[in-house]
Amino acid sequence: MRKSARRLAARYRALPGRRSRLKHFDPGDTAGLDIAKKKAQKLLESGIARLAELQDMLYAQDRWGVLVLFQAPDAAGKDSTIKHVMSGVNPQGVEVSSFKQPTSEELDHDYLWRSVKRLPERGRIGIFNRSYYEEVLVVRVHPNVLHAEKLPGELVSKKIWEERYEDINAFERYLSRNGYRILKFYLHVSRAEQKKRFLERLEVPEKNWKYSIDDVRERARWKDYQNAYDDMIRRTSTSWAPWHVIPADHKWFTRLTVAATIIDALEGLNLQYPRVDARRRRELAKARRELERE
Amino acid sequence: MRKSARRLAARYRALPGRRSRLKHFDPGDTAGLDIAKKKAQKLLESGIARLAELQDMLYAQDRWGVLVLFQAPDAAGKDSTIKHVMSGVNPQGVEVSSFKQPTSEELDHDYLWRSVKRLPERGRIGIFNRSYYEEVLVVRVHPNVLHAEKLPGELVSKKIWEERYEDINAFERYLSRNGYRILKFYLHVSRAEQKKRFLERLEVPEKNWKYSIDDVRERARWKDYQNAYDDMIRRTSTSWAPWHVIPADHKWFTRLTVAATIIDALEGLNLQYPRVDARRRRELAKARRELERE
Repeated sequence: MRKSARRLAARYRALPGRRSRLKHFDPGDTAGLDIAKKKAQKLLESGIARLAELQDMLYAQDRWGVLVLFQAPDAAGKDSTIKHVMSGVNPQGVEVSSFKQPTSEELDHDYLWRSVKRLPERGRIGIFNRSYYEEVLVVRVHPNVLHAEKLPGELVSKKIWEERYEDINAFERYLSRNGYRILKFYLHVSRAEQKKRFLERLEVPEKNWKYSIDDVRERARWKDYQNAYDDMIRRTSTSWAPWHVIPADHKWFTRLTVAATIIDALEGLNLQYPRVDARRRRELAKARRELERE
Repeated sequence: MRKSARRLAARYRALPGRRSRLKHFDPGDTAGLDIAKKKAQKLLESGIARLAELQDMLYAQDRWGVLVLFQAPDAAGKDSTIKHVMSGVNPQGVEVSSFKQPTSEELDHDYLWRSVKRLPERGRIGIFNRSYYEEVLVVRVHPNVLHAEKLPGELVSKKIWEERYEDINAFERYLSRNGYRILKFYLHVSRAEQKKRFLERLEVPEKNWKYSIDDVRERARWKDYQNAYDDMIRRTSTSWAPWHVIPADHKWFTRLTVAATIIDALEGLNLQYPRVDARRRRELAKARRELERE
């Protein structure tokens, strides 16, 4: 388990400076795993069981916080990945935050403010469904969104995206120095697969609610978004917080790979239940005697 | 007013790389201003009036946020400076946050978390009475405080103060790029003046409440604290957020200089009331006619 998790995690890690372009990754890849649906399901189940064990130690040890964030085009499978990978884990130790359009209170602050407020406590896993990376994605593709951010005019220059990459990298470095393990997932779906999933949402009544007219409008900007994702991954894959570009044309494979990558990261933290020292052991023994005497 | 404010602000600004050591500044300095108490009071009053005007524009324009933070040894005058300088300003646009010992919820997060939550909204002035700089002051002087921060052991190394300076500088650079003007004040009091003020607190019944046994314990570490302040000012005076080392042996002068420095910074923002365009002017004219017709 541990070794194969490490292999999968490494395969899709965008390496700073080197392999960090979208074109290096194939949305349809399955790492040569050609397995039946049932076998894939079994694998995922055993992964989730391991994840639950690790999360229990993370919680007990109460030193590290884990931030898992997802960015992706519509219909790439963010919601369903979160649902299927995290459902077996004790919800006391997990918190999912979805970031939609900023509120007016949020716009009255710097753009990281709302994310910082939602950072997980030590001992917990925080899931960001979309994140501050929207600040270099939708905000970049739609300049009117940037205009709405109420920045003093003289601070909005051509350098703004460079500055944001630099600031986000520094923010994540700071977090990693202060006990946060950061996992960033880009779900890499192809344009053809997105079309298929959109059509499904339009055809299957139970999936209709998932469809929004905006989805088609954003799809028309596919190329611009791909460029923005590409630039983001290239500029913000760091040794302390690399991107993982997860193939997303096959949902079973997306889930398996995301689970494996989280497991690999948690294994790397050397988690353990807090040790009980001699004095504390004596206290516990005494408590036990008293209980038995009752 | 404007010119003398600029002169006073510049006189005590710690310049990155150059004049940024405590020894360059004299706690008893009064910039050659040898004025009667009454005259000083008059000057301060006119400063506060100007501050109130500027703050009104800041609020109306709703683009810039202003963060004013104070660090200092006990009895240097943080509380009284905040009280006397900010009392004339509309409290709707000002918020004071005092940072004491972190709560257990705060310790479960990174050390900037509680400060970020308290950042002022755009259009407002946020005052931090003590701040995240305690992380390189009290935490540095008392290693047991660092130990209580629940960091994973492998992240606590000798480099930790260097890392904190770097992270704090990056955090402030990010804020300054996103519409925050940051003013950092170190109130520079002499050891002799601190003793005098402590004795006053012990002798004058109405001042007794201000005295804490901890004050004497911390005073015993005077040298360690001075070194920590010195290092902090040297390492975190940046072009985007310089320290101001304000002489604090004469309270009237401390207040005057802090007020002048804030005024100078606000003058530099080119604040103005939002312009009303032709269309909006027509709307306003229409509203007026309707009201008159009632």
